[in-house]
Amino acid sequence: MRQTLLAALSILTLLTAAVAQEKTIAERLGYPRDAKLLIVHADDLGMAHSVNAATIKAFETGLVNSASIMVPCPWLSEIAAYARANPQADLGLHLTLTSEWTSLRWGPVSSKDRVTSLLDKDGYFHLTETDAAANADPKQVELELTAQIERARALGIQPTHLDSHMGTLYQNKALFEVFLRVARSQKLPVRIAKYLFTSPDILSALSRDDVYVDRILDITPAVAPQDWGKFYSDALRNLEPGVTEVVIHLAYDDAKMQGATSNHPNWGAAWRQRDFDFFTSDAFRKVLQENGIKLITWRELGKLIK
Amino acid sequence: MRQTLLAALSILTLLTAAVAQEKTIAERLGYPRDAKLLIVHADDLGMAHSVNAATIKAFETGLVNSASIMVPCPWLSEIAAYARANPQADLGLHLTLTSEWTSLRWGPVSSKDRVTSLLDKDGYFHLTETDAAANADPKQVELELTAQIERARALGIQPTHLDSHMGTLYQNKALFEVFLRVARSQKLPVRIAKYLFTSPDILSALSRDDVYVDRILDITPAVAPQDWGKFYSDALRNLEPGVTEVVIHLAYDDAKMQGATSNHPNWGAAWRQRDFDFFTSDAFRKVLQENGIKLITWRELGKLIK
Repeated sequence: MRQTLLAALSILTLLTAAVAQEKTIAERLGYPRDAKLLIVHADDLGMAHSVNAATIKAFETGLVNSASIMVPCPWLSEIAAYARANPQADLGLHLTLTSEWTSLRWGPVSSKDRVTSLLDKDGYFHLTETDAAANADPKQVELELTAQIERARALGIQPTHLDSHMGTLYQNKALFEVFLRVARSQKLPVRIAKYLFTSPDILSALSRDDVYVDRILDITPAVAPQDWGKFYSDALRNLEPGVTEVVIHLAYDDAKMQGATSNHPNWGAAWRQRDFDFFTSDAFRKVLQENGIKLITWRELGKLIK
Repeated sequence: MRQTLLAALSILTLLTAAVAQEKTIAERLGYPRDAKLLIVHADDLGMAHSVNAATIKAFETGLVNSASIMVPCPWLSEIAAYARANPQADLGLHLTLTSEWTSLRWGPVSSKDRVTSLLDKDGYFHLTETDAAANADPKQVELELTAQIERARALGIQPTHLDSHMGTLYQNKALFEVFLRVARSQKLPVRIAKYLFTSPDILSALSRDDVYVDRILDITPAVAPQDWGKFYSDALRNLEPGVTEVVIHLAYDDAKMQGATSNHPNWGAAWRQRDFDFFTSDAFRKVLQENGIKLITWRELGKLIK
């Protein structure tokens, strides 16, 4: 009994050591284990002209360095032209299965007859990620995700990564498996954080070869508008070592965005203007410098994929 | 010979009298034969938030009193909500088979597999009306037009008339016949003017039961921006009796519209702002009053359809 216990303890020690010695994602990228690495990522490109214009402007500051594109959305062509003219830009695809604004709607890239489970009664994508996930046939999801990637490539976009608008593809294991299968076949990294999932069932779909970040940081509706900069600054001052993606939403607080996001203050026009204001500010630049935070991109992460 | 000539002359006289006595569209509407009746019609609702907002604002002046909606466009839901809240508004459908802006694109309402002849290489509608007409299979056109009308009705829009974005449905007789067939089955009047067509072949598709206006007035790129008001004022001062539709394009000259219409000054953002400025002005109201011009709507015309 005592011998068995000792043997078990020694195996446990070996395992712990193995885990401890396993290279972190920072180390795999060639940085020290204690490096603080940050991707500043703007979602929703292609959704609206205001989103495109604000994100391009933010790219020019160098402080926002990654973003992802919604292929089914009306302003895709505008951002595709930017992508062709700026092939070094770290642009991924924000795979989209929802159409959440009530005044501005969009639907699938693939032929509607083939993806009927993705449509609401008006023929657009569902308004919410829960409705989308509850109704989605995984085979139709795979068809649509592939169609979105093909349209992007046809327009000259060379995506560096994939993520999921409103997190629809994280809603259940069947959808998450489709997401991973599509990403692996494209050899593209996916927005996944080590501690993203509470469900071990979903987490079990991941393999050791998958490349993902340590954590994702995003603001919530609970933060008051006047505390916006403080929330981000505090979070960055307390940033743990490893790779963090801060997910932000940029646009100008103009009539168009107000129209698009009316009745939706969360992630609405003013919200996006506040994100734009902070992440293009000297205050943000100073926090990065003072806390030794280095910006990296999904392009670097993608190079780790075999 | 002399008798034959006399007989012929007398038949001619009778025919002339019959033509002269045929009721004009103004008379059929219950107005005197010499009444000057005007529909002030804004195109392209649903295309962009700026178009919706400017047109709704112009409606409030009472000086713009009719408009038509592009069902395949991203901002349809916004204008559908307006239509439901304002059932008296004179709103038609601007049947759409082209997607002409390079940064903001849209495609069919029907399943793409079924309307492949309507798609460009990127899966949107063709950029030009000539490409659209050259490639369109009339059966697929009928399917798509019907789908657009059905989607509009499903969203609570009760159209009072139909017209054709960029005039695609007037490009050849096959398309025009589809347009008429769809309109007749819906018992809706169509934007047709007595003198619209140079081709008698196309004109022959019309029957005596069809309801249409006498003439259509629209501005052209040949008019210099500073002459905008003068062009319209002069045209209205010289307006002939009967029913005229003045076709205008409203929007604000804002960043969004500038983005949408970049490289397209004709019918672009500034153009639409000029139209908005004139047709909501006291100058326009004064020209109407001074020249005894009465505003009417497509709703009145539609009542003539049996």
